[in-house]
Amino acid sequence: MKAAFIGLGVMGYPMAGHCQRAGIEMTVYNRTAAKAQAWAAEFGGQWQKTPREAVQNADIVLVCVGNDDDVRSVFYGDDGLLASLKAGAIVVDHTTTSAELARELSAAVAQHGGSFLDAPVSGGQAGAENGQLSIMVGGTPQAFAAAEPVFKCYGKVWQLLGEAGSGQLCKMVNQVCIAGILQGLSEGLALALKSGLDIPTVQQVLAGGAAQSWQLQNRALTMAEGEYDFGFAIDWMVKDLGYCLQEAQSKGVDMPVASLVRGFYQELQKQGLNRCDTSVLLKRLTDQ
Amino acid sequence: MKAAFIGLGVMGYPMAGHCQRAGIEMTVYNRTAAKAQAWAAEFGGQWQKTPREAVQNADIVLVCVGNDDDVRSVFYGDDGLLASLKAGAIVVDHTTTSAELARELSAAVAQHGGSFLDAPVSGGQAGAENGQLSIMVGGTPQAFAAAEPVFKCYGKVWQLLGEAGSGQLCKMVNQVCIAGILQGLSEGLALALKSGLDIPTVQQVLAGGAAQSWQLQNRALTMAEGEYDFGFAIDWMVKDLGYCLQEAQSKGVDMPVASLVRGFYQELQKQGLNRCDTSVLLKRLTDQ
Repeated sequence: MKAAFIGLGVMGYPMAGHCQRAGIEMTVYNRTAAKAQAWAAEFGGQWQKTPREAVQNADIVLVCVGNDDDVRSVFYGDDGLLASLKAGAIVVDHTTTSAELARELSAAVAQHGGSFLDAPVSGGQAGAENGQLSIMVGGTPQAFAAAEPVFKCYGKVWQLLGEAGSGQLCKMVNQVCIAGILQGLSEGLALALKSGLDIPTVQQVLAGGAAQSWQLQNRALTMAEGEYDFGFAIDWMVKDLGYCLQEAQSKGVDMPVASLVRGFYQELQKQGLNRCDTSVLLKRLTDQ
Repeated sequence: MKAAFIGLGVMGYPMAGHCQRAGIEMTVYNRTAAKAQAWAAEFGGQWQKTPREAVQNADIVLVCVGNDDDVRSVFYGDDGLLASLKAGAIVVDHTTTSAELARELSAAVAQHGGSFLDAPVSGGQAGAENGQLSIMVGGTPQAFAAAEPVFKCYGKVWQLLGEAGSGQLCKMVNQVCIAGILQGLSEGLALALKSGLDIPTVQQVLAGGAAQSWQLQNRALTMAEGEYDFGFAIDWMVKDLGYCLQEAQSKGVDMPVASLVRGFYQELQKQGLNRCDTSVLLKRLTDQ
C-alpha cells in the first residue's frame, strides 16, 4: 500500500513514522520542507515539495495540519492534493476542524473520484508517539474499512460515528468533556494546595472513586508542580472549543462551562501562556 | 473488636453489614429504629435506641449520617455518643461535613478521652454495597492505624491526608472534580444527542483518550437514556458543594464552575428532581 502524509507536526511526524515502520510506502509533505527532509532521513520514506506531488501515487492520503484554513490550503489550489488525487483514493483528515468543513471536503473529494473520512484524534503528542491514539471517524463504512490498516499503525481505538462530519462532532464532545474535567480539577487542586494537602495522596484516593479521570491521573502531579511546558497547547484548545461552541449554538445546545473555560484559555493566551498544556487552568487560580 | 455504627442509610447499612460479616461485634443505631431492627435481623448484630447506648462498649465508633446538624445531634446531648464513650475509643465520622465541624468534634472527642477521625467516603451506594469505597481520612497516624481493620471491611483505598479536617478537605476536592466532570460530560452529550451520534460508540472512543473518566464510563449511557433514579442524590451534592464553597471562600480560592454547577443543582431541586443522581445535569440541557 502507498500512502501520503500531509503535515508533520508533533502529531503527524510520529504518526507517519509508525506507518512507514509498519511497511506502508510513505511519501510526506510539510509546509517547512526541512522537517519533511528530517522525517525522510529518520524513517526512510519519500518527501515532496507540494501536497499535489506527495499524493499522486497514494492509495490513501492522511492529513494532519492546524485549523480549517490550513486544511483548505493543502486540499485546494494548483498545488493542493485534490489536483492530483488518484481515482478511488481514500483521503483521511486527522485535523480537528469544524464539522461544516468535513462535509464540504467530503463533497469535494467525491467530485475528484475519492472517498473522504474526517478522523480527528485524541491522546495528544504522547498518544501519537506511542501509537495509542483514539480516532473518531465520519464517512462511509467502505472508506472506514479501507483505512483501518492505517489506523492500526497509530491507533488504540477507532470508531465510525456516522456520515461525514460525525468524527468532528465526536471530537467536540471529547474537548467539552476535557474542559469540564480540567476546570473542576483545577478548582479542587487550588483548594488542596491552599489547604496544604499532599497532592500525590489526594490523587491516589480520588483515583479510586467517582472523581477519577485520565486528567487526574496524568496531570494532577504536574499541575501541582506548576509544569505546563508539554502536552496539548491551549492555542489548539481555543480553536477546538471555538468550532464546538459554533456547532452548539447552531443546534441550540447550551454550553455554559465550555464557554466559560474557553474564556479562561483566552485570558491565559493573552498572558503569553498559549503554548502551555491545557492543564494550565490551575495557574489562573493559584496566581491570584 | 467491638464497634458501633450510627446511621444506617444507603451507605451505613451495607457498611455496618460488611463489618459484622468480617467478625467485628457490631451494635447499631438508627434514628428510625425499624431500620436498625431490620439490620440486626439481616446481619445478626445488636441494635440500640440511642447513640449513647449503642457506643458504650465500643472500641471504635463509626458514624454516617446526613449533614453537620445530624452529626451534632448524634454526638451531643444526654443521648449522644459522647455521653458514654469508652476511654481510648476511636470515633470515625464517615459523614461529609464542613472541615470546621471535624476540627470541633476532634477536640470534643479528645476531651472525652477518645480519638477522632473525619473519614468521608467516595464511591456511592454501589461502593458501599460492594465494599469498594475510597476513604479520605483526617486525624492522627495512631488513630488511623487503629481504624484500618475496619476500613478494610468496606474500603478499596484509604489514605490519611493530615490532621483533623483534612479528610473533609480532600472530599471537597473530590466533589469539585465531579461537578466539573459531570457538567462537561452533560454539555458534550447534549451536543452528541442533538447530532444523532450513537452514545455507546462515543463513550467507547472517548474512554480511550484524555476525556476518560469514571463518570463517562459509569454514567454516559444512563444519562443518554434519561435514567436518574439511582446513585448519588443532588440533595447531598448541594450540601457538599455548599461546605466546599464556604471553605474556598474563607481561603480565597475562586471556584467558578463549582459555584455555577451548585446553582444548576439548586434549579433541579426546585423542579422536584432532588433525589435524582448527580448526572441529571444533562436534563437541564436537553429539556430546553
